[in-house]
Amino acid sequence: MCGERKWYSGHDRLPGIFAGKAFFRMMEGKVMEFTEAKFSKLISPLNGSVIRDIFKLLGKPGMISFAGGNPSNKALEPEVIAPIAHDVILKVGTPILQYGGTEGFAPLRESAAKFLTGSGVNAKPEWILPTEGSTQAMDLLFKALIDPGDTVLCESPTFLGTIQALHTYGAKLVAVPTDENGMLPDAAEEAIRKYSPKLMYIIPTFQNPTGVTLSLERRKRIAELASRYGVIIAEDDPYRDLRYEGEALPSIQSFDEEGWVVYLSSFSKLVSPGMRVGCAVVKIPSLMRKMVIGKQSSDLHSPLITQAIIDEYLRRGLMPAHVERIRALYREQLAAMLDGFAAFPQGTTHTVPQGGLFVWGRLLEGMDAVKLLGAAVDANVAYVPGTHFYPDGGNPETFRLNFSNAAIPDIREGMARLAGIIEKEAKN
Amino acid sequence: MCGERKWYSGHDRLPGIFAGKAFFRMMEGKVMEFTEAKFSKLISPLNGSVIRDIFKLLGKPGMISFAGGNPSNKALEPEVIAPIAHDVILKVGTPILQYGGTEGFAPLRESAAKFLTGSGVNAKPEWILPTEGSTQAMDLLFKALIDPGDTVLCESPTFLGTIQALHTYGAKLVAVPTDENGMLPDAAEEAIRKYSPKLMYIIPTFQNPTGVTLSLERRKRIAELASRYGVIIAEDDPYRDLRYEGEALPSIQSFDEEGWVVYLSSFSKLVSPGMRVGCAVVKIPSLMRKMVIGKQSSDLHSPLITQAIIDEYLRRGLMPAHVERIRALYREQLAAMLDGFAAFPQGTTHTVPQGGLFVWGRLLEGMDAVKLLGAAVDANVAYVPGTHFYPDGGNPETFRLNFSNAAIPDIREGMARLAGIIEKEAKN
Repeated sequence: MCGERKWYSGHDRLPGIFAGKAFFRMMEGKVMEFTEAKFSKLISPLNGSVIRDIFKLLGKPGMISFAGGNPSNKALEPEVIAPIAHDVILKVGTPILQYGGTEGFAPLRESAAKFLTGSGVNAKPEWILPTEGSTQAMDLLFKALIDPGDTVLCESPTFLGTIQALHTYGAKLVAVPTDENGMLPDAAEEAIRKYSPKLMYIIPTFQNPTGVTLSLERRKRIAELASRYGVIIAEDDPYRDLRYEGEALPSIQSFDEEGWVVYLSSFSKLVSPGMRVGCAVVKIPSLMRKMVIGKQSSDLHSPLITQAIIDEYLRRGLMPAHVERIRALYREQLAAMLDGFAAFPQGTTHTVPQGGLFVWGRLLEGMDAVKLLGAAVDANVAYVPGTHFYPDGGNPETFRLNFSNAAIPDIREGMARLAGIIEKEAKN
Repeated sequence: MCGERKWYSGHDRLPGIFAGKAFFRMMEGKVMEFTEAKFSKLISPLNGSVIRDIFKLLGKPGMISFAGGNPSNKALEPEVIAPIAHDVILKVGTPILQYGGTEGFAPLRESAAKFLTGSGVNAKPEWILPTEGSTQAMDLLFKALIDPGDTVLCESPTFLGTIQALHTYGAKLVAVPTDENGMLPDAAEEAIRKYSPKLMYIIPTFQNPTGVTLSLERRKRIAELASRYGVIIAEDDPYRDLRYEGEALPSIQSFDEEGWVVYLSSFSKLVSPGMRVGCAVVKIPSLMRKMVIGKQSSDLHSPLITQAIIDEYLRRGLMPAHVERIRALYREQLAAMLDGFAAFPQGTTHTVPQGGLFVWGRLLEGMDAVKLLGAAVDANVAYVPGTHFYPDGGNPETFRLNFSNAAIPDIREGMARLAGIIEKEAKN
């Protein structure tokens, strides 16, 4: 984390000449002031991503961070990407610098469809909407569908970035219980009947934050529920290719014959998060059209250079060997982290993921991972308290650990430090 | 246009297996169908940018297009950008491929602030929010401020992309009259008193669509109005450096001491629209913070590669000579277009811009530029009917011409064809 910090410029470092000064002017006896009251009702209560704010605390030397969700720096290949960037700009020429279509760079729509088809997803070029990471794919889907007050079902717990994104549309989140095989379909069906949700948001593979994978049986059931009740499913699947053991499962979308499932993919965890290339796979043309209209006023289109780099990366056939290499890397990091739990106080539990970037833990009853974070940061080790991943908070004893962004000796050391802190707290 | 078309994949070419087929399934006697009723109330009525749809008609051979707002292909420099891309990826290394800060690539915040400061704007690095073109800067400003039903003042006519973007937030647009020196300040003040708008949207320099520039006197008056009444101004100024004659004017923002003016800038018209790099200059920290929060869920952050390319372009000092070169190019194209009006029927009027990309025309009373577009496209010449630039429509006799994207002989030929079509219609 330390080396990256220079690329952040946090709002807390905005000294601005205006900071701390009131914006006012007397006019006919009234004070004109820029106040919070000017903000839109949906944005006004939002204070930003907790994770992004935790990141800003990680600059101190010696910090071992299990807090982020970054790929390992070792998984990134500037020496491969630089010549590809050079080549595609010259190969495509002037059109790569001109305005492009909102629907995306046509060659990438083709190559992404081919890539996804080989990976358990139904995909055709005309179903692919390239986006700025899957973050934007979700934003556009929410923009197309969600009115303030609409209900969205999600897993309990779920990705906090999506919780925040849904709040910007005024959605009412209802969390559906999960177990070690993902969302419980019976509970999902009950929630659908009770709340008539517009959307269900699911991270089926190596879920963020739990690392849990939705079983094959449940994938079929959930596709069926979508069709039976007419609920759109956002299947957010950025970790699917980061499998370290076990067999790959087909996507929920592959069981959907009518277009209810919108599949969201990303190249962030495979090639580069900083390039911001992901896509939505949208089978229903009218829904695709509305997402395109939303994108017209969001950013007009995604940058052509980054789309062309990913396209070329796929066309050169670089993905399979690269994915194999990072899998080997992460497999060992995950193993080291799982080993580290042995030193935790008895009764601490954790998931045993077959892939992805995260392990989810649960402290002893009555312990509070938010409170412990201070002691952890003092001891130079960081994680994200689990409560932030629950739409309604609570669950203070849970926590999320990321293993991809720390070297193995650091994972061992960091887990030992955490064990010590938790042990000490458990004795109090 | 023709050469670019292959990068577009319009929705009208989405054959999809689902096209024209109902999405339904019988369930307990009910038909489950994906219908327009699923769409959010704000997106549901929107049909997308008219300009983007006109673009799709331009593929036919021999078409002379005055319809777009694209820079000239001659103004784009893939041979300059390719080695810069290569160099910055290797120079920055791994962090350019990692997650970056939502607040933007720190070196670009510095270099953009320096560039803008040299160009009549008050700017400091901490006030700069790099965005996906100024399109996204506007979207984030609207997201931070606008609730459905809020009033936004704009020029009459104004940029149609902004009209659409404001509709996605449910804003009520009130158009303020303009003349050859831009928005009328007295009319603006009256509208402020009457409607208590949250925002005023102004394109002060070589306005889109009219080409008109707001006078110095009015810039001061408008900055004063913002402060007196506590109205945020979105000063959208992407054409400012494309001046072919006359003296540059300071921005409205330079007269604002309290932060009411948010300045929106873009590198699209100078370096590359396809790279999608622009920025907002936001002086008020709490407003910057809300725009950053909006961006977290819009796209997390802008791609680092494109930000770094623009940064490097500025740092290498390539901008001044490049701008000089494209000015010389566009100056002649504008002159050729203005000459072409001589053959139009007497009584046709047009603006005489000192810069930018557009000329605005007005046909004889009772003529209809929407109706004429069909005949024009048949004769292989295209423009955008002016009615689309009015929030409330009307003004059928107006039209917008772009001169940057056609060679001078084509401009002459296209204007002659238009003159013929209009002449013929005038005689009917």
